[in-house]
Amino acid sequence: MRFRMYDLIEKKKHKKALTEEEIREMITCYTAGEIPDYQMSAMLMAIWYSGMTDEETGWLTMAMAESGEQLDLSGIPGTKLDKHSTGGIGDKTTLVLGPLMAELGVPTAKMSGRGLGFTGGTVDKLESIPGLKSEFTEEEFIRLVRTVGFVDAAQTKELAPADKLLYALRDVTATVDSIPLIASSIMSKKLAAGADRIVLDVKCGSGAFMQDAASAKELARQMIRIGDLTGRKVTAVISDMNQPLGTAVGNSIEVQEAVAVLSGAGETRLVTLCTELAVEMLQLSDQARPYREDARAVVRKILAEGLALNRFREYVREAGGDPAALDRTELDAKYRKEVFMDREGYLASCNNSEVGLVSVMLGAGRSKKGESIDFEAGIRICKRLGEYISKDEPIAILYTNREEVLPEAAHRLTAAYTVSEEKPEVAPVVYEILR
Amino acid sequence: MRFRMYDLIEKKKHKKALTEEEIREMITCYTAGEIPDYQMSAMLMAIWYSGMTDEETGWLTMAMAESGEQLDLSGIPGTKLDKHSTGGIGDKTTLVLGPLMAELGVPTAKMSGRGLGFTGGTVDKLESIPGLKSEFTEEEFIRLVRTVGFVDAAQTKELAPADKLLYALRDVTATVDSIPLIASSIMSKKLAAGADRIVLDVKCGSGAFMQDAASAKELARQMIRIGDLTGRKVTAVISDMNQPLGTAVGNSIEVQEAVAVLSGAGETRLVTLCTELAVEMLQLSDQARPYREDARAVVRKILAEGLALNRFREYVREAGGDPAALDRTELDAKYRKEVFMDREGYLASCNNSEVGLVSVMLGAGRSKKGESIDFEAGIRICKRLGEYISKDEPIAILYTNREEVLPEAAHRLTAAYTVSEEKPEVAPVVYEILR
Repeated sequence: MRFRMYDLIEKKKHKKALTEEEIREMITCYTAGEIPDYQMSAMLMAIWYSGMTDEETGWLTMAMAESGEQLDLSGIPGTKLDKHSTGGIGDKTTLVLGPLMAELGVPTAKMSGRGLGFTGGTVDKLESIPGLKSEFTEEEFIRLVRTVGFVDAAQTKELAPADKLLYALRDVTATVDSIPLIASSIMSKKLAAGADRIVLDVKCGSGAFMQDAASAKELARQMIRIGDLTGRKVTAVISDMNQPLGTAVGNSIEVQEAVAVLSGAGETRLVTLCTELAVEMLQLSDQARPYREDARAVVRKILAEGLALNRFREYVREAGGDPAALDRTELDAKYRKEVFMDREGYLASCNNSEVGLVSVMLGAGRSKKGESIDFEAGIRICKRLGEYISKDEPIAILYTNREEVLPEAAHRLTAAYTVSEEKPEVAPVVYEILR
Repeated sequence: MRFRMYDLIEKKKHKKALTEEEIREMITCYTAGEIPDYQMSAMLMAIWYSGMTDEETGWLTMAMAESGEQLDLSGIPGTKLDKHSTGGIGDKTTLVLGPLMAELGVPTAKMSGRGLGFTGGTVDKLESIPGLKSEFTEEEFIRLVRTVGFVDAAQTKELAPADKLLYALRDVTATVDSIPLIASSIMSKKLAAGADRIVLDVKCGSGAFMQDAASAKELARQMIRIGDLTGRKVTAVISDMNQPLGTAVGNSIEVQEAVAVLSGAGETRLVTLCTELAVEMLQLSDQARPYREDARAVVRKILAEGLALNRFREYVREAGGDPAALDRTELDAKYRKEVFMDREGYLASCNNSEVGLVSVMLGAGRSKKGESIDFEAGIRICKRLGEYISKDEPIAILYTNREEVLPEAAHRLTAAYTVSEEKPEVAPVVYEILR
């Protein structure tokens, strides 16, 4: 290392900015195992307190993006567009946007993750479709984009290994919740995955990493700025995560809900968010950019006519899956339990990460990496915040093959909600769009 | 571990106080190797930023003091008194205070350290006396206190091993300069060494860890408070370290200067500091406590009559050393070089740690643990801050057996001083005494 790590820690400790060279060298040497974890964790804690300038965050992002393999998407013509969600409960927008954008003439090549903790993962949801593959060779990957118009693939290459190492260290040293570190972590993977333009869905609320609108906005601002500094156009949609998105939390059940949206039906807030994300992606694409109101109308039409659903069917078939799975409307779980609140009133608030954890209990998610998932487990959300509930209407239905967890799952789910006598203010699904 | 280290880091990160139980468990488990360094360094950095309450610092001190062996001084009757300096350049007060306090009827049993970096160590200075031992069995140690009235021993048992481990980690993670961590580190070793009452000589200035009076005072305040919380009476003398103490920096040369003080001579500032430390030690002792002015007169009388010097001679003999060494007034170094400033004027400021590093270059100190020392190397300081110097009067004389280092040593020494046309304000040797 050309610098003493000690000096870099000392500098950051006193809130001085590191240079591009210092950051690059630090990341290269840390990835090579030349900087001990105890020095890096002191640095991470110093960053937690002292922050980073936008330039430092940009350099950190680039250094992490370049720390390993980078995807070569040059086999796909035109601008490469990506959509990324910071993660939430019941977020199946990716399942909708691939086929929808393809119908709009905008091919997308997306790397998705698996679920961990209270957030689900697109790859798990897709793999609930029998036979469907999500790991592809480079040729298969590019062929899908060219023929079907989109691909949703599991990440197989190790992108941004420096980020992976740093994240593991942050995870055990209480340094995860630093906005510049979160922004650079997300963006480094996006850059390594080869995207030219990115629509970020920055989730905000009790089921998201950013709990309040101010920090979600600051995270969005920093990621847009990283885009500026690294030559990527970024739009950020700040969306609500104070309750599950849509009516389904799980895997098969979320595919079913995505199919509903692709058929022109679906829960309003979910449809709104999918539409707004599609409109923003269209604006960033190589396509002619219609007025936003016109774009919304086109999206509605495509969904209503079932064109996007057909495109999804085609994708499932091409990816080795059984398209008949898309016609299912029920779950194959052995146990089913309706959950009721013990008082009447308006559903006022939701501890949304608890809802996510209940779905993990039911078998729909993982508490540790590598755990297997029960695709048929999940939660059907029957009531939304702001709705009046009576004692004989379930707020949700739990599906599981683990009978023993049902009492606690039901208890935790009801405990996650509050009921009030007055009709509460409900946050809109889209807070703000930053470009 | 009964707590998750992650949760403790998270708590401290948000400036919340840890409990006694949490701190004790953390130190016990870290010492046992059950907490990884990367978590402890994140905690140390969080402490650097968030600080600790006095109670937390007290608990940390106790936990570190109890992490290993503790000295049993019950073989020595009465209250056990210790004097501790936070370290500086030319600090030979310990050599004077042992015999002086013995003459005043106050036995002292002191563990001293070896020099490292720009600060010297009492044990090295003592070992420059041919034959003198400084590692003792418990019996020898107690016998010396009982017969001669004092002992200055090298630390042989591993006291406060938790402090040692933590210090090594702080040293490489830029977390040394945290006042609660410094205070608990010093005090943990004092507590483990068995002292009941402690006079702290908190050095302040360019040759000390605390560069300004405000931080020296805060360090002193915290150490006194730790004393309160752990049942030890502590007095702190804040003294100047903006220039070397006295006229000698090295080992043999400092013993010679101590002998001068013990004979009733010696440089004024050094004599003043020794006297004030002795007066404060007397106040903390089991002896009748005279008015401070009377105590000063008694000290002057004991020194002038050579009683303390005789006591020192006796100690040297009993510890296996050659008392004739105490009559030496020159150094056996092969090379000697007078150092001149290139302009006339008042000696205005001194980068004192540089003077310490020059003495290390000459061979009088160590840059790494375990290096051997040349007892005959050193610096004789001829001019004090505030004195007028002409171009033909040396400000210092260098002594060394390493001819090759002389040019750079002389250059660095002159570069450490500045000269001004106006007579500068000079800091008093004792700034303040906190009780």
